[in-house]
Amino acid sequence: MTDATLRQTIEAIVDLDASATAAARSHQDRLTKPRGSLGQLEDLSVQLAGLAGSVPPPIPTKAAVAVFVGDHGVHAQEVSPWPQEVTGQMVANFLTGGAVINVLARQAGAEVVVVDVGMSDDAAAIVADIPGLSRRNVRRGTADLSAGPAMTVDEATEALKVGIATAHELIDAGNQILVTGDMGIANTTASAALVAKLTGSSAEEVTGRGTGISDDMHAHKTTIVAKALERQGSDRADALAVLADLGGMEHAALAGFMLAAAARRVPVILDGVIACSAALVAQALEPKVLSALIAGHQSVEPAALRALESLGLRPLLNLDLRLGEGSGAALALPIVRVAAAVLAEVATFDSAGVTDKHEENIG
Amino acid sequence: MTDATLRQTIEAIVDLDASATAAARSHQDRLTKPRGSLGQLEDLSVQLAGLAGSVPPPIPTKAAVAVFVGDHGVHAQEVSPWPQEVTGQMVANFLTGGAVINVLARQAGAEVVVVDVGMSDDAAAIVADIPGLSRRNVRRGTADLSAGPAMTVDEATEALKVGIATAHELIDAGNQILVTGDMGIANTTASAALVAKLTGSSAEEVTGRGTGISDDMHAHKTTIVAKALERQGSDRADALAVLADLGGMEHAALAGFMLAAAARRVPVILDGVIACSAALVAQALEPKVLSALIAGHQSVEPAALRALESLGLRPLLNLDLRLGEGSGAALALPIVRVAAAVLAEVATFDSAGVTDKHEENIG
Repeated sequence: MTDATLRQTIEAIVDLDASATAAARSHQDRLTKPRGSLGQLEDLSVQLAGLAGSVPPPIPTKAAVAVFVGDHGVHAQEVSPWPQEVTGQMVANFLTGGAVINVLARQAGAEVVVVDVGMSDDAAAIVADIPGLSRRNVRRGTADLSAGPAMTVDEATEALKVGIATAHELIDAGNQILVTGDMGIANTTASAALVAKLTGSSAEEVTGRGTGISDDMHAHKTTIVAKALERQGSDRADALAVLADLGGMEHAALAGFMLAAAARRVPVILDGVIACSAALVAQALEPKVLSALIAGHQSVEPAALRALESLGLRPLLNLDLRLGEGSGAALALPIVRVAAAVLAEVATFDSAGVTDKHEENIG
Repeated sequence: MTDATLRQTIEAIVDLDASATAAARSHQDRLTKPRGSLGQLEDLSVQLAGLAGSVPPPIPTKAAVAVFVGDHGVHAQEVSPWPQEVTGQMVANFLTGGAVINVLARQAGAEVVVVDVGMSDDAAAIVADIPGLSRRNVRRGTADLSAGPAMTVDEATEALKVGIATAHELIDAGNQILVTGDMGIANTTASAALVAKLTGSSAEEVTGRGTGISDDMHAHKTTIVAKALERQGSDRADALAVLADLGGMEHAALAGFMLAAAARRVPVILDGVIACSAALVAQALEPKVLSALIAGHQSVEPAALRALESLGLRPLLNLDLRLGEGSGAALALPIVRVAAAVLAEVATFDSAGVTDKHEENIG
C-alpha cells in the first residue's frame, strides 16, 4: 500500500485500551443492578470505554450520518428493478430532507451529510443545482463487475480517502459518533460479490433480494455475482485489489470512513449489507479497526449475516430492515448512547446505599 | 366482575380502527423506499395508526414510565439471592434518580413515576421521608403464593384500579405513550407462576434465573413455582382469580395500567417478564387490549418468551436484558417514535419526484 494517507490512517489504529475495558467491566459490577443484567449493553459500554480510553466514556450526543453515494456498472445486467436514475432522485430527496434517513436522523438528533463519491453523470445532473451535497466524485459510476474490474486500485484508493477525509471533518466538527449510510442502485450486488470473495462463500450463499426482487431476478442476480467471482479477478489476500475488482465507490469510501474513525478512536455504527461488506475490506486492511465498529442491525440480506459472522459482531437490532441509507444504524444510535450513559450516570451500590446480593451468587 | 371502574375500563376498549390501518398500510407503500423495506417498523406504524384512528398517528414525544412496586411473601422461600430490603432501597434509588431506569428514561426523554402499590412495611419505611413516591399501597406485600393465595380478589381489584388511575393521570397530563416498569424482589417467581397457569405450561418451562441465580437456587425456585401450581388454587378461566392467587400487587397494577391505556387508545410499551405476565392477565380480561400493547424487548426469562408467544407479540429488541424496572421498554421508546415519524414525515414517490420500481416487482 503506497498511499501515504491510507498508510498513516491504518498505522494510527490501536487496540482497545485494556485498562479502560477492565475498569469499565469492574464499574458495571458496582452499579445498582444485578451483574450482567444489561446484557449486550454492558459489552457495548466496555467497548466504548476501551475505545475512548476512559471510564466512563463520553456519551456520544453529537452524531452524524454520512451517506456515501455511488452508481454501479453492473446495473446494466438488470440486477435491480429500480432504474438507475433513482440514485440521483434519492440524493435529491436526502438533500431536501424527505427520505427515511432524514426522518430517522432527526429523531435521533443526528446530522446527515451526503457525499457523492461515485455518482453517474445522469445522477449528478439531477442534483446539480441542489445545495448541500459534498461533491467528491472520484469516478462517474463503476464499470460492470461481472465483466471486469469495477474500478482501478488508484480509484479505490482515492475513494477510500474520500471516506477518510469525511470522517476527519465530521470528527473535527465535534461529532462523537459516526453512522454509516449509503445509496446506489444495484449496490447489494457489489456487496454480495465482496462478501463472497472475502469470506470464501458462494454466490448462492450471499446473494439476496436487495430492496425486494422477484424469484427470477434473484436467480439472475445470483448468476451475475457468480460470473464476477468466476472471472480471472483479484487475489483474495489483497483487500485493496478485491475492493477495486468487485466493490463500489461507496464501499471504498465507507471502508476509509471506518478506518479514519478508528484512528481517531471514535465509534462507528454500521448499517446493513453495504457497510458490513465494506467493514470486511477495512478489517482486511487493519484488523484493529474492529475496536471502533458497532453493528447497528441485522439486515435481511444473507451477505450481511455472513459478513457480521466473519467480523464477529453482534447486531443491536433485528427488525427485518432492508432499506439502507443508514436507517438501521441510525435506529441503533440511541441504544449506543444509553450504553455510555449507564456507565456515566447509574449509582453504585455504595453511593445509593443498596444492599448487594448474597454471596451465594456473586461473580 | 363486579367492580364498576374495571368494567367500564374494559368496555371502553375497542379494536384497531380498520380504515386507519388500511390507510396507513397504503401510505407506507407510497413512501420513497422499497415496499416493506422497513420491516417490523411498518407493522408498528400501522398499529399506531389503527390505535390513534388517524394517519399519520401522533409521534409520541411525551412519554412516561410507571414503575409499580410490590413485595412478595414468596421471598421467604429463598427464591432470590437479594434481601427483601432491596425493594425499598431501589425505590429510594429511583426517587433520587440514580437507577438504570432513570438514566434510560432521561436518554429517551421520558418521565419516571414510581407507584407503591404493594410495598412491605419495611420497604415503605426506607422511603417514608423521600418525596415523589405515589403512595397507593393496597397491601403491605403479598402472602406466600406457594402456600396459599397471594392476595384476595378484592385486593387484586384495588391494585388493578391503582394501575387504571395511574394511566389516566399520566394521559391527562399529556403523555402520548406509556412504558411499563416494575420493582419487587422475587417478582419473577410470581411472574413464572402466572405465565405457567395462564398458558398451561409447567414450572420447568417457565422458571428462569431472574436477575441471576445459581443452579441450586434455580432448581429450588422451580419447585416453589410447581408447589404454587399444584395446590388447590384458582380456575384458569377466571383471570382475576388467577391474578389474586399467584400474582403480585405490581402485576395487578400493570394489568390495569394496560387496560386503561387501551381504553384511552394510548400505546403501552411492555418491559420484560413482569409486564408480559401481567399482559396475559389483561388479555384474559379483554383480548382487545392487544391493540395498545407493544413488546419492547425479549427478556432472557423463559416465561417472557412463553407469554409473548401466547400474546402473539414480536419484541422490538433482544439484548439479553434481565433487569426489569422498565429498562427494556424504555430502550424501545425511540424505535416506536420513529415508526410514527416515518408515516408522518417521509416524502412520497409523487411528492419527491422519485421513480417507482419497474412493474415486474410491484406488490
